[in-house]
Amino acid sequence: MSVATMSRESSAAPQTGRAARLAARTGQFKGATAGVAPGFVQGNLAILPNALAGDFLRFCQLNPKPCPLLAASSPGDFRLPTLADDLDIRTDLPRYRVFRQGELVDEPADIRGHWRDDLVAFVLGCSFSFEEALIEDGIELRHITCNATVPMYRTSIATAAAGPFHGPMVVSMRPMKPADAIRAIQITTRFPAVHGAPVHIGKPELIGIADLGKPDYGDAVPVNADEIPVFWACGVTPQSVVATVKPEFCITHYPGSMLVTDRRNTEFAIM
Amino acid sequence: MSVATMSRESSAAPQTGRAARLAARTGQFKGATAGVAPGFVQGNLAILPNALAGDFLRFCQLNPKPCPLLAASSPGDFRLPTLADDLDIRTDLPRYRVFRQGELVDEPADIRGHWRDDLVAFVLGCSFSFEEALIEDGIELRHITCNATVPMYRTSIATAAAGPFHGPMVVSMRPMKPADAIRAIQITTRFPAVHGAPVHIGKPELIGIADLGKPDYGDAVPVNADEIPVFWACGVTPQSVVATVKPEFCITHYPGSMLVTDRRNTEFAIM
Repeated sequence: MSVATMSRESSAAPQTGRAARLAARTGQFKGATAGVAPGFVQGNLAILPNALAGDFLRFCQLNPKPCPLLAASSPGDFRLPTLADDLDIRTDLPRYRVFRQGELVDEPADIRGHWRDDLVAFVLGCSFSFEEALIEDGIELRHITCNATVPMYRTSIATAAAGPFHGPMVVSMRPMKPADAIRAIQITTRFPAVHGAPVHIGKPELIGIADLGKPDYGDAVPVNADEIPVFWACGVTPQSVVATVKPEFCITHYPGSMLVTDRRNTEFAIM
Repeated sequence: MSVATMSRESSAAPQTGRAARLAARTGQFKGATAGVAPGFVQGNLAILPNALAGDFLRFCQLNPKPCPLLAASSPGDFRLPTLADDLDIRTDLPRYRVFRQGELVDEPADIRGHWRDDLVAFVLGCSFSFEEALIEDGIELRHITCNATVPMYRTSIATAAAGPFHGPMVVSMRPMKPADAIRAIQITTRFPAVHGAPVHIGKPELIGIADLGKPDYGDAVPVNADEIPVFWACGVTPQSVVATVKPEFCITHYPGSMLVTDRRNTEFAIM
């Protein structure tokens, strides 16, 4: 999941997935993609050497709620035709992060210089897709109201391990009135490919969260007395897990600067 | 909703809707219908003079969650062919309650002697249908574990009034672990004709319930520290509303002794 919010919308922002990618590709757009190309699916990016790809694929398969895999490239292939015909994963995101042995070594706008023949690109669904559906239903998202990043927490829920990949599930939290929480469960159930239904509701201590006011990522947001916290599996989980593994080489999107695809959010609604 | 539970199952119980109605019709079966004819829809019964029928129909239409109307007869007609071909509402329930001016005057096994040409029979969905789906999914229902009646509470949620019919919504409560509560919302969403999704979750005080340990109907059940209460609109709502109106004449099912139909619970799943 992005650590930006959907509230930073700009009237000058690209309005389609293709326009967003072209603007990133030509260097015209290097910012956060929240509010860019409304209605189009955005995704988290993880690029790993092929030696780790099999384990990472298994990890995603075992943990579909935090790691909803939208596409994986062939080794060395920088295209992802199921997400967009013209997509070049090396140039089409506004900004990237490059890691060696777990150390951040570069934050380029283009990774053609870092590309290798053994790299596999993974694109994972992000909460922008289901948040759009919640907003369209009239449900308030507190972090957007507060112009903040959604609060995220490491939990006591373990992911299922695959090879070197293991670690706690990270969740995002949205406080809601109980009737909205029930509606939000119904709506996000329709989107299993982008985190789906919540993994927890109420009582944060049951999943190892001691203080909602102290998120591990993102910003704290107020939870009112007539609200309960609702927790979704979060795309920061694979980022955190990959960071723990300290792979020899790894590239991710820059926080908030996601891949914008040609797929529509509505395509991922199962009904 | 019945005030019996599904746990009082007997191997001698009728196994189909038709067998259950025949056993009631011939006087062989006068008990509670919990566990009778598994898989077949059971319903709450309310019979009112035609002078009140229009308002009661509107009340059901306005309040579909507590009053999910499965069928209404023509005035004077004791058949309900959409629920079963051979159904005679005067004989096919194990036991009835007859009220005059709101006073209980009889609890007969047969109401042919009370029948009038201006009576309209209403059958409303009951929670047995969705409870069956929850049990099949492996979700524990505490009142069944406790061999008790589900706890029910009058709330501060007002129903929408129609003519003389008005009053608070009554809810049933089932304590669940958060993950089960989320799953139960998904499952019961599939059954809008039998109360559907919960109306509230967590924080009982927000809907005017001061003490979960003191239900207005049914039995208190334990709520463990790792559980949250989940509240469904309850078929006791129309019974309580009708009782307030004190109609000149009224017949209902005897608590726990429901109408058993030929319809299958699975028919009422919208997906």
